[in-house]
Amino acid sequence: MGFLKAKGVVYKPVDLVDLGPDSDEVYLQANVKAPRMAGLLVKVFAWFLESPIIGGILLYFLKRNNLIHKLVSFVELQEPPLFEPLHPYKGSEETEVKCVEAALPPPEKVQHAVDCLQYAEDVSESPKPSFQRWTILDYSRSYTSGEITPLMVADRFIAAVRESSSPSLQMSFFINFSVEDIIRQATESTLRYEQGKPLSVLDGVPIAVKDEIDCMPYPTTGGTKWLHKVRQCTEDACCVMRLRLCGAIIVGKTNMHELGAGISGINPHYGYACVSLSKPLGIHIIQVKLREDLPVDLLPVVAAGLCPVALGIDGGGSVRLPAALCGVVGLKPTSGRVPHNGVLPLNYTVGMVGVLAATVEDSLIAYAAMSGNLPSDPSSMTMPEVCLPLLKSANYMSFNIKMARSGKWFDDCTDEIRVCCSHAIAKLSDKYGWETVEVTIPEIEVMRLAHYLTIGSECSNSIAVHQEKNLDKMGWDVRVGLSVYGAFDSKEYLNAQRIRNRQLQFHNKIFSKADVIVTPTTGVTAYTIKDDALKTGELDYINGAALVRYQIAGNFLGLPAVTVPVGYDKSGLPIGLQFIGKPWSESLLIHVASAMQALCTSEYKRPEVYYDILAK
Amino acid sequence: MGFLKAKGVVYKPVDLVDLGPDSDEVYLQANVKAPRMAGLLVKVFAWFLESPIIGGILLYFLKRNNLIHKLVSFVELQEPPLFEPLHPYKGSEETEVKCVEAALPPPEKVQHAVDCLQYAEDVSESPKPSFQRWTILDYSRSYTSGEITPLMVADRFIAAVRESSSPSLQMSFFINFSVEDIIRQATESTLRYEQGKPLSVLDGVPIAVKDEIDCMPYPTTGGTKWLHKVRQCTEDACCVMRLRLCGAIIVGKTNMHELGAGISGINPHYGYACVSLSKPLGIHIIQVKLREDLPVDLLPVVAAGLCPVALGIDGGGSVRLPAALCGVVGLKPTSGRVPHNGVLPLNYTVGMVGVLAATVEDSLIAYAAMSGNLPSDPSSMTMPEVCLPLLKSANYMSFNIKMARSGKWFDDCTDEIRVCCSHAIAKLSDKYGWETVEVTIPEIEVMRLAHYLTIGSECSNSIAVHQEKNLDKMGWDVRVGLSVYGAFDSKEYLNAQRIRNRQLQFHNKIFSKADVIVTPTTGVTAYTIKDDALKTGELDYINGAALVRYQIAGNFLGLPAVTVPVGYDKSGLPIGLQFIGKPWSESLLIHVASAMQALCTSEYKRPEVYYDILAK
Repeated sequence: MGFLKAKGVVYKPVDLVDLGPDSDEVYLQANVKAPRMAGLLVKVFAWFLESPIIGGILLYFLKRNNLIHKLVSFVELQEPPLFEPLHPYKGSEETEVKCVEAALPPPEKVQHAVDCLQYAEDVSESPKPSFQRWTILDYSRSYTSGEITPLMVADRFIAAVRESSSPSLQMSFFINFSVEDIIRQATESTLRYEQGKPLSVLDGVPIAVKDEIDCMPYPTTGGTKWLHKVRQCTEDACCVMRLRLCGAIIVGKTNMHELGAGISGINPHYGYACVSLSKPLGIHIIQVKLREDLPVDLLPVVAAGLCPVALGIDGGGSVRLPAALCGVVGLKPTSGRVPHNGVLPLNYTVGMVGVLAATVEDSLIAYAAMSGNLPSDPSSMTMPEVCLPLLKSANYMSFNIKMARSGKWFDDCTDEIRVCCSHAIAKLSDKYGWETVEVTIPEIEVMRLAHYLTIGSECSNSIAVHQEKNLDKMGWDVRVGLSVYGAFDSKEYLNAQRIRNRQLQFHNKIFSKADVIVTPTTGVTAYTIKDDALKTGELDYINGAALVRYQIAGNFLGLPAVTVPVGYDKSGLPIGLQFIGKPWSESLLIHVASAMQALCTSEYKRPEVYYDILAK
Repeated sequence: MGFLKAKGVVYKPVDLVDLGPDSDEVYLQANVKAPRMAGLLVKVFAWFLESPIIGGILLYFLKRNNLIHKLVSFVELQEPPLFEPLHPYKGSEETEVKCVEAALPPPEKVQHAVDCLQYAEDVSESPKPSFQRWTILDYSRSYTSGEITPLMVADRFIAAVRESSSPSLQMSFFINFSVEDIIRQATESTLRYEQGKPLSVLDGVPIAVKDEIDCMPYPTTGGTKWLHKVRQCTEDACCVMRLRLCGAIIVGKTNMHELGAGISGINPHYGYACVSLSKPLGIHIIQVKLREDLPVDLLPVVAAGLCPVALGIDGGGSVRLPAALCGVVGLKPTSGRVPHNGVLPLNYTVGMVGVLAATVEDSLIAYAAMSGNLPSDPSSMTMPEVCLPLLKSANYMSFNIKMARSGKWFDDCTDEIRVCCSHAIAKLSDKYGWETVEVTIPEIEVMRLAHYLTIGSECSNSIAVHQEKNLDKMGWDVRVGLSVYGAFDSKEYLNAQRIRNRQLQFHNKIFSKADVIVTPTTGVTAYTIKDDALKTGELDYINGAALVRYQIAGNFLGLPAVTVPVGYDKSGLPIGLQFIGKPWSESLLIHVASAMQALCTSEYKRPEVYYDILAK
């Protein structure tokens, strides 16, 4: 349909774009022209899209009506493409960090991270937490003192998973979960503690892994019923292997949106009925309506207390979004900081390993265990060291952090989120004297569309050879997604990469004025999955756009980002605040997140479903 | 047309592909299914391609019949994409080199290169050259001795260009050429020599620049009649600026195939009639049928003696091809070695600045002047040093170079080229004891198609916004090219990049067994441009494929490569031998090329048209 030319935007040279607070750059709200669809409608839509002629015409109008033509396909801009968000490694300029050799064995890096936390003891002067999940150090202390053993935790964990998937609760946290494998790991860990030789504080700590990451002895399904048959999992992904070296118990592969090709997290294959309402863990979970008599709630495994840490892949917010929606911490490091080996290649340039954790401190420990490049990484990513933040509340005051806030973008969320997040920032200013710098980050919606085009093209390329053969094994919403993903030409893909370059330049300029960018993590809190979506999935690009609104720079530009829970809306649904950092600035980001967390823990609430797995 | 799925090849994992001489990998000859077209046929073909429905159907069959579907679009392979051929910089492992700081001013680097040539004096023990073009050092010596001045050379140069474009010869070497600007530069240079202060041996040396490179005071047309109107040239490209700092006289902008979108070099806008028969310089020149009574000959500016050095952009052989076809030296350094700033963005990932030169030594001097990265380059390309080869014939023996030769590929050329190139390699073995390692480099034709798809997509993206408005100002062959270039989808583009990754792995394995890969530079010698092609250009993908057959690794994988003239076919048309090196191995390549040249100069012939510009 390339002959139907549309008129595209002519973008100004980057240097002529005013990034100040009074910039006349127009803030364009997501202009999604696609009604929510579920049930039969999705099926019919998929059929139409997959039919040759009508499909082509439909796709043309979809792209045009959703401004892809105007903002990406037919635009005029100066920048050459930036294909991968790889940043030259620069040593840390921060103070109050402990820099350790990147090549240290993971258990030693973990010990250094724990040493950094010793400094954090004085954080406990902060107001008493109203609710606190069990942390990695809680596990470690309990095991060391002998109060409880990894085997006992494994038993409780298995019982909790069984209970959660019982007819009364029907929550499918896991796509795969082997009792035998968990018991084996727990037995070995218990023995190590008995011998007084735990591998690290992670020894015996249950960690769940999204089913997009290779992890023995499980197949890697990517949420499908077929992908593991055409691509065998033969060894642990690098990130999993590093956690194992620290003694962590890998407790199974968590559920995910099929092929990551959607945001609702509804998966018709792995426990759809009531079960899939739980949209569990680590991923696009969204929301759990447990039973008629229970209030709406959120339940990824970390939020539910099943593990203090879970690994996800964040290609468009898939770590930070569920973390924020469920009230836990989500950390997505700089692109390349954690090796990508052993991750399903559902895309090539936007997905990165990230951590969901009970607390900022736990995210630091997991980050320390996994970070550091491999010899095969491009030399721009060679990091001789990993710098870990010395978490000490006295530091926060001395830092004088500048937080860039792009007003209209920041405000493009629900009233409750806006008020809650603004309030959280005000706390940082009041308590630590940190400064908010008002800026304008332009072309946010353009970046969202360019990212969509990129992740879509790459996903479509990645599974193209298997698509036709397995079409009947895929969910209807995914079939719609794949039809759209496959509809971009190489010129459009290249334009998206040129927009990536342009946006990186904007962000670099913003970072010359500020240390972090602060945004709400999501534009909306979790919304209810309706019954009609269970079998077919649903297409809800409007809520989808509101969810990913603040996520894209992390993926498209490879910038590190962290989300911290800062409050709740009136229904009691969690709200997250996000900090986006310069490349390689994880230590500063963790510092900032820890400062934010310290000011919010007094308001944290216990979720409706919570497994008190270390309880005496 | 994506719904018309074809069955693609399933590629073996790289480690299972046998790269040995007896490999059962099939050598696939270019299977071009497109008849030569010129004149009215090209016009009709362009009209059809540009019409919506018929165009789509035609393009589908073109892609299918030329094996693009089977070998690129619908293939199954494991590799993730490699978007840019950027190699981590590694220091030189070579002996007999002089490594100098990359940040030195260009004139100092040039002086170091000249110092390396002092060693080469003993090369003159080799057989006396039968014909030798004037070299940079010839110019420098003549100027220094006062025998001749840059102003006198400028006058002769201007007279020669005028004569060559006279009605009797009608050769349009230049798209733009300013007498005033040349005289100004020559006057300044002459003054410097009078004061005994030339900037370097390049002071006063005429250098021509392909019209794809920014160079004041000229517009950069890219061979079009409109591109310079939508993209102003406001300063010298980095490579030009560095040569200027050495005192070189930039003598004008040479002709090129419109938008670089073809290989014939026929440009209907800049002196087409008889003139464009000269397909001059630096570029896709091909062949000059001067007058009925003159034999067929080749005439880029370097071959014709107008300058000892010219700069080209090599995106698919456009430096090495004209050099080989015209009997001069062509050097294309590693991707990133010479900064790309100020080059028309007709593609993003395959074009590189290269040098056409009278001799290997001259290519070394120009290379030394231009090499060294900029702070804005990715850190993988940070080169603290530039290593220059100490050219001394005694070295050649001590080197014990291993030359990889992929038999079926090497032999896929005319008999005369095969015999001539084999003979040249035998000379190296006989004289220096260098070893030929028989290997199989697989999937060469796949790489050619993937490169075509890549350069096409990127060119199409680059000029997309201007295309419609300027269609009537473009040549017919280019209109056909752009229709094909624009017909690839993002999945195909990504597959091409995955093939790039795969090929780099093959080449890395070959380089673990050999120092260089040796091939003929072209599969055919220059062929005659027929009269029907003059107004419309011609489409001759069969000869095109034979020309680029050995070029692609240099561009697609960013490997350095050099072509040296080694003989002539029966019509007296030059034949080139190519050496392809490991990333950053320019010094070794220049050593090898110099050794080869030393063994061939005794057979060099004077071209039919040659301006003896330094003659006393």
